[in-house]
Amino acid sequence: MHSELRQLVRSQLELLLERNNLVGAKALLVPVQPVDIAEAIEGLPKSMQVIAFRLLSKAEAIEVYEYLDSTVQQSLIQEFKRQEVLDIVDKMSPDDRAKLLDELPAKVVRRLLSQLSPQERQSTALLLGYEENTAGRIMTPEYISLKENLTVRETLERIRTLANTSEIIYYLYVTDTSRHLTGIVSLRDLVIASPEKTLGEILTRDVVFVHTDTDQEEVARTIQRYDLLAVPVVDKEDRLVGVVTVDDVIDILEQEATEDIYALGGVQSEGDNYFQTNLVTVARRRVVWLFVLLLTNTVTGTIIRSQEAILQQVVTLAAFIPLLTGTGGNVGAQSSTVIIRGLNTEDIKDMGAGKVIFREALAGILLGLILGMMATVWAYWLQGNLFVASIVGITLVAIALLASVAGSALPFLFRSLGLDPALMSAPFITTAVDVIGVLIYFNIAKLILRL
Amino acid sequence: MHSELRQLVRSQLELLLERNNLVGAKALLVPVQPVDIAEAIEGLPKSMQVIAFRLLSKAEAIEVYEYLDSTVQQSLIQEFKRQEVLDIVDKMSPDDRAKLLDELPAKVVRRLLSQLSPQERQSTALLLGYEENTAGRIMTPEYISLKENLTVRETLERIRTLANTSEIIYYLYVTDTSRHLTGIVSLRDLVIASPEKTLGEILTRDVVFVHTDTDQEEVARTIQRYDLLAVPVVDKEDRLVGVVTVDDVIDILEQEATEDIYALGGVQSEGDNYFQTNLVTVARRRVVWLFVLLLTNTVTGTIIRSQEAILQQVVTLAAFIPLLTGTGGNVGAQSSTVIIRGLNTEDIKDMGAGKVIFREALAGILLGLILGMMATVWAYWLQGNLFVASIVGITLVAIALLASVAGSALPFLFRSLGLDPALMSAPFITTAVDVIGVLIYFNIAKLILRL
Repeated sequence: MHSELRQLVRSQLELLLERNNLVGAKALLVPVQPVDIAEAIEGLPKSMQVIAFRLLSKAEAIEVYEYLDSTVQQSLIQEFKRQEVLDIVDKMSPDDRAKLLDELPAKVVRRLLSQLSPQERQSTALLLGYEENTAGRIMTPEYISLKENLTVRETLERIRTLANTSEIIYYLYVTDTSRHLTGIVSLRDLVIASPEKTLGEILTRDVVFVHTDTDQEEVARTIQRYDLLAVPVVDKEDRLVGVVTVDDVIDILEQEATEDIYALGGVQSEGDNYFQTNLVTVARRRVVWLFVLLLTNTVTGTIIRSQEAILQQVVTLAAFIPLLTGTGGNVGAQSSTVIIRGLNTEDIKDMGAGKVIFREALAGILLGLILGMMATVWAYWLQGNLFVASIVGITLVAIALLASVAGSALPFLFRSLGLDPALMSAPFITTAVDVIGVLIYFNIAKLILRL
Repeated sequence: MHSELRQLVRSQLELLLERNNLVGAKALLVPVQPVDIAEAIEGLPKSMQVIAFRLLSKAEAIEVYEYLDSTVQQSLIQEFKRQEVLDIVDKMSPDDRAKLLDELPAKVVRRLLSQLSPQERQSTALLLGYEENTAGRIMTPEYISLKENLTVRETLERIRTLANTSEIIYYLYVTDTSRHLTGIVSLRDLVIASPEKTLGEILTRDVVFVHTDTDQEEVARTIQRYDLLAVPVVDKEDRLVGVVTVDDVIDILEQEATEDIYALGGVQSEGDNYFQTNLVTVARRRVVWLFVLLLTNTVTGTIIRSQEAILQQVVTLAAFIPLLTGTGGNVGAQSSTVIIRGLNTEDIKDMGAGKVIFREALAGILLGLILGMMATVWAYWLQGNLFVASIVGITLVAIALLASVAGSALPFLFRSLGLDPALMSAPFITTAVDVIGVLIYFNIAKLILRL
């Protein structure tokens, strides 16, 4: 549905609810997809949200609820009666429920868990036991596992009874008596196989799997790499305990990309939506970074001040400081951007740090030479002083080399220290290059002007 | 498979091929996944690649070939005999084949197309007729479409015969006599339905679909939004012509994120792998941007030069220029980063431009006040001149406000002009804020120092 249409549904819904036309509102929502209904409900005034939500059928309510923003989920849950908790929270998929409970106050969680059916309580508690951002936390424990000696016909019959309780049935997992994963049968394989064959005859034994403590980004990369619809999760004893599905993976990859982009822009990210957090949080996430940069910038200032003697003799040198530090920062930002992205998407593969940095150094010299020549001509034309013009040009080559080496080497250094390379972000490199760049500038000036 | 293991397979493979031990090499590859085999082949010297490739079974060869980098695909294709073209290129999925042909020289394409079977030639030519980066180009025309009056039992029988030619069978599409899409049945629905029902009784009529000219990013967002495994593509007359699958979508979203990140870092991206392009291309993609920034930086320089009179009287003012422009650039980069990402992931949703910019302006003032106070104290401690210290502090508030407004407003402006907001990247805003920031600085200085 296009965004204009979605807007229309939302405003229409609000209008109907204002007029207390519940039948009309209900009819309006019938052809609308659950995710779009969720967005429409999010857009309503708080008092109307629970009314709109109660218009939905039980089956639809569960789906819509899973799509709601966690803040809306939380405010709705406070309004829920015991029966609604059983109808909705109890029926949610355990991974979504775990995410919700993770964000609620402990008191509410305890009340809610007590209202869940024993079985659902157990599977949620299981997920909450795993570390954040691991496969264990994002997996669903609802999968179909079967034994090898079952025939295709028996399996199809079994699936008919299980399908409603299981989140995905496109892959069936075959396990031995101690729950070890021995193979996988896709629903496709099952449908095209002859009914008398056993699962043991048609299963694929080379199964790609992850462990409960595998980082969620690695889980996502695995699904992406092998073009899977889902990946099985096994525990330390190699027993099958859950499944991560491709739709969750898309969101994870997007979240990781956002985190990288924020880090490159010098903004802390905590996985939630920047546009829904309050201003104080926004300022807090940005000020730390700015403060660090302010301090390092002060160092640049101190260096410039220490060269006041030169500046007073050749004031015109000051005019080129922004050009030099700016260009250095930009060259460094370019290098660090491609390296950080390459490391995080594994595009760099096994090209080794040395080779990559050498390549960036060459690129830096090449860029420095091109820009240096232009800057020299430019500076001469502006100033008419060949000494100053050539100082600017030579400095630019040195700074471009320095910036591209720093921009490519620092992310590798950060990674080898076990830190996220994206922390070595563009603003940081910009500032670092400024400091050293200004030092180089004045020293070349001293040399050429013989001061 | 872990990356160390993948490395081992590759070096092992090279060793065996060097010793001409083809049986050993073949055995080595048996338990390895196609994507990992592709990576191992890419790592081999060119002369060995075709030898290694010919070790694979026909079925495996197609899969491995689809995973190879396009440069390796192209060099292999030159070596292929007519039979191999029929075995491999003819059996590739049409969307992958279209991508390959798109990159080959026209002469090779003509030769290849003539060797394909008439049917495959037609479906490839169909895909190549659509604009780049549209649904038409990335869809596969291999899907299963059926008529409403078919029973579940008949459908299952039909699938058994079709499954090998169709890329995905997890969704079946129901069309009327003029090929209009009337509904969708998932394989899951089919398997759990009673065999005597007709497709008309079990199909879902509210189908999410896209058009052939829909941009690939929007296709990806649609699949992501509705948690689909595939989305049907219809032509202008609403006839079903193809399907886009979720595995392609993950790669598209990643590519789009990379393009955004590159744009934010001031690097042009053309969708290929930065680490596999040559240095001249790398320099070309970076120098244009740097040159633009160099020119705008010159403006900053010119402004500083025009203020030489003030600078000569109070040289110490120069020392704070990097701190001010640097902080301004960083604040602006933060704002533009979150806005651009928000626009591209649709996180901003319908929070109008005005509201977002106002919010960023408030954040800018808040950040400016915090940093301004710190900078004033700091400058006074360094300089002992209260006038200069307060000039620095006041300028910082003004610059932070300016930077956050520019950083948030310019991406919206770009988008309303129909341009990619990511073009309004951090380096550009940094430079723009530098120019105006320096002007503000000197004017505040003039005012306070009464020069």
